[in-house]
Amino acid sequence: MAQNIYDDPTFFEGYSQFRRSREGLDGAPEWPTLRSMLPPIQRLRVLDLGCGFGAFGRWAREAGAASVLGIDLSEKMLEEAQARTQDTGITYRRANIEELALPDGSFDLVYSALALHYLEDLAVVFLTIHKLLAPGGHLVFSVEHPLFTAPSHPQWRTEADGSKIWPLDSYLLEGKRITDWITPGVIKYHRTLSRYVNALLTHGYRITHMEEWGPSEQQVAESPELADERHRPTFLLMSAQKPPDSNDASE
Amino acid sequence: MAQNIYDDPTFFEGYSQFRRSREGLDGAPEWPTLRSMLPPIQRLRVLDLGCGFGAFGRWAREAGAASVLGIDLSEKMLEEAQARTQDTGITYRRANIEELALPDGSFDLVYSALALHYLEDLAVVFLTIHKLLAPGGHLVFSVEHPLFTAPSHPQWRTEADGSKIWPLDSYLLEGKRITDWITPGVIKYHRTLSRYVNALLTHGYRITHMEEWGPSEQQVAESPELADERHRPTFLLMSAQKPPDSNDASE
Repeated sequence: MAQNIYDDPTFFEGYSQFRRSREGLDGAPEWPTLRSMLPPIQRLRVLDLGCGFGAFGRWAREAGAASVLGIDLSEKMLEEAQARTQDTGITYRRANIEELALPDGSFDLVYSALALHYLEDLAVVFLTIHKLLAPGGHLVFSVEHPLFTAPSHPQWRTEADGSKIWPLDSYLLEGKRITDWITPGVIKYHRTLSRYVNALLTHGYRITHMEEWGPSEQQVAESPELADERHRPTFLLMSAQKPPDSNDASE
Repeated sequence: MAQNIYDDPTFFEGYSQFRRSREGLDGAPEWPTLRSMLPPIQRLRVLDLGCGFGAFGRWAREAGAASVLGIDLSEKMLEEAQARTQDTGITYRRANIEELALPDGSFDLVYSALALHYLEDLAVVFLTIHKLLAPGGHLVFSVEHPLFTAPSHPQWRTEADGSKIWPLDSYLLEGKRITDWITPGVIKYHRTLSRYVNALLTHGYRITHMEEWGPSEQQVAESPELADERHRPTFLLMSAQKPPDSNDASE
């Protein structure tokens, strides 16, 4: 079970100030790339894992999704998400992703933005999602990039000549990372990039695309504070498909 | 066309001293992992891109491969490879990978160890290989890991407490890297990990496995000079398949 840090009052207050919290999808610089990796969303039954304030679900419904179920651990976030919509095609539920009790094959798209790196057991998560997906269904997710989660001291350093380096260590040493982000003691799990790839393949998905997201030149021009992120990807974005002829032989 | 650094006398002499040159496959610590990613090799028609001294081809024939064609740019390496075998099932040819003129669908396995990062145009290489593979055929390759090729100064640094960091920068800035390795001015091409993944997918392959190779604890115990490599992968190993029902629609 993941740490429920988002219900910590100080964390919640801090997180709520972020541009991505205030402005929704348009406040997340990686959103245009992640959106381009989605299948056509009309009439899809959508599950949003770690839905937060529910921005994706509202966008999906406006774009024609049949229904959206948003799952999160944080009661405060779900309350806020519910307050932001009156759409009866969107429902919310408080649950651990690993313990979802939902019918097999009941979703066409599982989406998860910046949530899976809080979960310890990736294999269980991908297995659970695979069962929930209908044959031919899609999984599209973003996580903190492994290069972001790996180091003991994940902060840019300025060199004598003014250039920046990212002090990488421990990349191959997977496991728990405790960081100070908004509040001290935030728990996340570092995994290698190949772990994400092989966990998908092992559980019967086909990988369809991968992006190691960094800002475009235009985004850096508009938001100069993003400039360093050109040197080390911030997010890993992946899309995968449950094969149309899948009989869940892997399960 | 790739730089033909291996025919530089100083480079050739230096390279020939490496454990992997003297001992063949057993001198390459990543070989057991790469071997585990190969399909059953009995009766396969094998193409070895960047065959060097030919160690893989000799192993493949002993393991039951129907035939092996070894391709390399280096005349010296091909001469040495030829001198090491009398097996008429192994042939060598000097060629640029990008300019291979061979019948479509004439190989069941294309193997390439630590060669593709010398080539500028990955798309052309993967397209060429896809045509050469029979439907259902496999591509298995290793390259220097993108974390190894990315930095401006690719050398471990020792911290005040004795720990090591890898000074990462420029990961997202793909392109030429000129390094001093054995001799000055060795040209290779840095690409992100997602570039390898998406180039395979775009050209119609299915990805079957990925390894970011670092030494095992046992290998570090036996070869303590490998210890730092536990913090940053040295090699990227990938396997992919041309789908059995492929009609080369992507070409």
